[in-house]
Amino acid sequence: MRIVVVGGVAGGASAAARARRVNPDAEITIFEKGEYVSFANCGLPYHVGGEIAERKDLLVATPELFWNRFRVAVKTRHEIKSIDRERQTIEAIDLSSGQSLSIPYDRLILSTGSEPNRPASKVPWPSNVSHLWTLPDMDRVLETIRVNKVESAVVIGGGFVGLEVVEQLHRQGIGVTLVERNAQVLMPLDREFARIVEKHMQDKGIELRLSADLEEFIIESDRATAVKLSDGTEIQTDLVIVGAGVQPRISLAANAGLAIGKSGGVSVNESMQTSDPKIYAVGDMVELIHGVVNEPVRIPLAGPANRGGRIAGEHAGRGDSASMGKILGTSIVRVFDLTAACTGLNEKTLIARNVPFKSAIVQATHHAGYYPGAEPMQLKVIYSPTDGKLLGGQAVGGEGVDKRIDVIATAMHFGSTVWQLAELDLAYAPPYGSAKDPIHMAAFTACNDLSDAPRLVSPFTDLSNFQVLDVRTSAEQSALPLANAVAIEIDALPVRWTELDPAKPTVVVCHSGKRAHIGACWLRGHGFRDVANLTGGMSIRSLMERGPSA
Amino acid sequence: MRIVVVGGVAGGASAAARARRVNPDAEITIFEKGEYVSFANCGLPYHVGGEIAERKDLLVATPELFWNRFRVAVKTRHEIKSIDRERQTIEAIDLSSGQSLSIPYDRLILSTGSEPNRPASKVPWPSNVSHLWTLPDMDRVLETIRVNKVESAVVIGGGFVGLEVVEQLHRQGIGVTLVERNAQVLMPLDREFARIVEKHMQDKGIELRLSADLEEFIIESDRATAVKLSDGTEIQTDLVIVGAGVQPRISLAANAGLAIGKSGGVSVNESMQTSDPKIYAVGDMVELIHGVVNEPVRIPLAGPANRGGRIAGEHAGRGDSASMGKILGTSIVRVFDLTAACTGLNEKTLIARNVPFKSAIVQATHHAGYYPGAEPMQLKVIYSPTDGKLLGGQAVGGEGVDKRIDVIATAMHFGSTVWQLAELDLAYAPPYGSAKDPIHMAAFTACNDLSDAPRLVSPFTDLSNFQVLDVRTSAEQSALPLANAVAIEIDALPVRWTELDPAKPTVVVCHSGKRAHIGACWLRGHGFRDVANLTGGMSIRSLMERGPSA
Repeated sequence: MRIVVVGGVAGGASAAARARRVNPDAEITIFEKGEYVSFANCGLPYHVGGEIAERKDLLVATPELFWNRFRVAVKTRHEIKSIDRERQTIEAIDLSSGQSLSIPYDRLILSTGSEPNRPASKVPWPSNVSHLWTLPDMDRVLETIRVNKVESAVVIGGGFVGLEVVEQLHRQGIGVTLVERNAQVLMPLDREFARIVEKHMQDKGIELRLSADLEEFIIESDRATAVKLSDGTEIQTDLVIVGAGVQPRISLAANAGLAIGKSGGVSVNESMQTSDPKIYAVGDMVELIHGVVNEPVRIPLAGPANRGGRIAGEHAGRGDSASMGKILGTSIVRVFDLTAACTGLNEKTLIARNVPFKSAIVQATHHAGYYPGAEPMQLKVIYSPTDGKLLGGQAVGGEGVDKRIDVIATAMHFGSTVWQLAELDLAYAPPYGSAKDPIHMAAFTACNDLSDAPRLVSPFTDLSNFQVLDVRTSAEQSALPLANAVAIEIDALPVRWTELDPAKPTVVVCHSGKRAHIGACWLRGHGFRDVANLTGGMSIRSLMERGPSA
Repeated sequence: MRIVVVGGVAGGASAAARARRVNPDAEITIFEKGEYVSFANCGLPYHVGGEIAERKDLLVATPELFWNRFRVAVKTRHEIKSIDRERQTIEAIDLSSGQSLSIPYDRLILSTGSEPNRPASKVPWPSNVSHLWTLPDMDRVLETIRVNKVESAVVIGGGFVGLEVVEQLHRQGIGVTLVERNAQVLMPLDREFARIVEKHMQDKGIELRLSADLEEFIIESDRATAVKLSDGTEIQTDLVIVGAGVQPRISLAANAGLAIGKSGGVSVNESMQTSDPKIYAVGDMVELIHGVVNEPVRIPLAGPANRGGRIAGEHAGRGDSASMGKILGTSIVRVFDLTAACTGLNEKTLIARNVPFKSAIVQATHHAGYYPGAEPMQLKVIYSPTDGKLLGGQAVGGEGVDKRIDVIATAMHFGSTVWQLAELDLAYAPPYGSAKDPIHMAAFTACNDLSDAPRLVSPFTDLSNFQVLDVRTSAEQSALPLANAVAIEIDALPVRWTELDPAKPTVVVCHSGKRAHIGACWLRGHGFRDVANLTGGMSIRSLMERGPSA
């Protein structure tokens, strides 16, 4: 049995190793167009910033290791030109010698990954403009920084990789401008959460240019000295790094007549088989079933790529396999002192898909408030208004954001409702959480929202249409003023509520939404018919108002 | 409607606050025997050690706050003597005045908590012997430390609280001996994981006395100068803190004829109603349904107590409520630089209950190994050999232990199998995890174990019955020698495997079990019929062998 893997990164290496473990006799070969069979592409930004000090730490597996450990042959610098499905061969070119080869396979595993988008592609890119997608990209960027004594840089694209690059360049003492064509960074997050990240970057001295796209480079002797944006402005720069999304590399698969899905990725089944059961595809090039919408989607992330590789290798080697399961697009990024993470769908996407939803935001600390060092986080859950099923989760904060998103992703894998989320038995000791974890607080808020509790209104609500009750302490009110509000501290409300007009639609506001809920319940219990709670409270709202002018 | 709550701590306070939110008109009163209506009892050890600097930070809610914010009346220093269910009254004594009161209720919520076990109870305890269960206990301990210039202490009981106290006393520069009557600390963990914790404490200079019980105090002028243990030895000491488990306080409920379950806790339904639907019980005094065995158990922890309080208050105030759900005994403790956590059942308990199980241990790092600061953890999953359903999880290590146990607890809440655990879409970026998270690695190992992969053998396996293959590097071998093993590095195995005897039962060993799996698969593919993998590898095994002599 001959198993041929095309592409080492993005699942190919996992596939080959797994195939060997389940099949001692197969002849297994990996063909890789580049020089490196497998490297830690998620680590590239961190080496640019020096956090990962040694380049060699990024080389997760060498051809020697594959041969010695697994008896898997690795052919680097071999490009695959075509697949002959009838004859079960692939046509390869040895890029070193120029020689053509025809390689037979019994099982073929495609792992050709994705290609970074190339804006301003009409001209050849000058030498100080680069992606940060491959080891050679990284080497080029580091060389530019070293040789050109880079003092300023422009990063195109405010996605996960773009934000990691921004931080790492800043770490090197470089002044950074981030250009993002959408009105917010981190499109998987909803706007209020993206705002927190934007504000944090600005506080660190990063220049943000939102709703602006790269138009062209101003070039002097093969170096970009500035970038021109779609809004007509120019930004002087010594270095440009482009992280503007990726496209799946599917031409090999498409030319071989393999089915391509609506999302633009190769269609695969639960064992990662394409429409030709002898051919598998894994990683960024495929589409997978989304756990919320139950439809194929393309979400290029390392986790599903690696797990998919394992499954493809298992099935190719043994004839059966575990199942891939559904994906949720769970993802996370560190941006300076903040962590931002999400799973499932966001509000933007749900609106676009016409899926009804409600959402609740809580502000909570990552462990017991009375234990020192509690770091705040904002946590949002999005859920169905009809059956309470979780549709998504987002969090931004310090420590413990990763845990809460992984818990929500795990609950969502099993189709959890917000009521089930509230039942979770999570680990509590003062250094790790609270007896009522942020997860529970978010779930409780959502459960209230789906019962007869005062309704939640979004952080974007125009408060001028309401009678606004501010139940914060006077110290909180002076630190973060809220105009045109009636200020009655929560502990005075049972005495002073009569100062308010029960006939007016009323919004209750506090810092996190917790005391506001208590206040709103009080008012509702005393004849106020239309009472709402500003979800997430001033902690979110204040960040909205101070955000950058997009 | 009159709602009466007996006991502020352990869920009572939550119940009262929730009842108010869902019922604006009820008259709500909390009766508390002690001086404090609600305090952070999980924080007491941390104030003894000075980590929580201010005593007032432990007072989570005062009677004033309850009245001002919720219009909940709090009567401290009131002891409830009996319940008259027919007349719907409770008989109270005001401990300050000695006066008796009869208080009517429409709904009664019992939150009487638990009582710490009192070993050596035949004599009155001397002044420098104390529990650490209440604020007065804590005050007494701190006073003893201050006045007596305590240099040495004995802690009785190696459970969660005991270990927290050990660390905090050590932090104060006090020499600590820990006495535990079982053969291991932290009984919710299996022995190999408890061993890691024991070793870590010994490395910090803590003296461990396992399988030894407190027999009596040696007393001089009302001070214990030593404790005498069941093994006949004596330990000199200036201070004794007893954390030897708790018993539910159920006499009030039992005397009122409320149903008591087999586990010794008050029986409640999903809304926390006792056998008398007008009476609720919450917290340490009740038994709840365990998610694995589907039977009532008594697990005194703050999380379920607080959530149960919320549900009881909701139902008492509104007539319906969310449901309590099942518990898993998820718990966590920090012991110096280690975190130990668990959920579900352990092997000891499964054996005692005659439940068949298998288990897999992996050693993994909390985030990508190539990103600096990766901390190792040991992670164990326990699962059904028939349907792969998760039965329990345990972890010991540094950062990220809490996240993995919460993910396993969440998966178990939904009845997850190990195959489903392997499918989870978790958040990955280098600072937070790995493309294949420790959760996935544990699940993969378990899935292999349930397929036709080489079987796993326990860290306690007597290797002298096997041909032992050590596939670690020579550097690893010299750092941590394994006697009587054939040493062939994994990458040389495809050449050198012929040096082994395929007829002999063989165990393959590496540091974590990962390379051993590759080696074992290789041997099995080459004619070795009986091949096993030492689960958890030398990383666990070495800790076993170096552990304390119990």
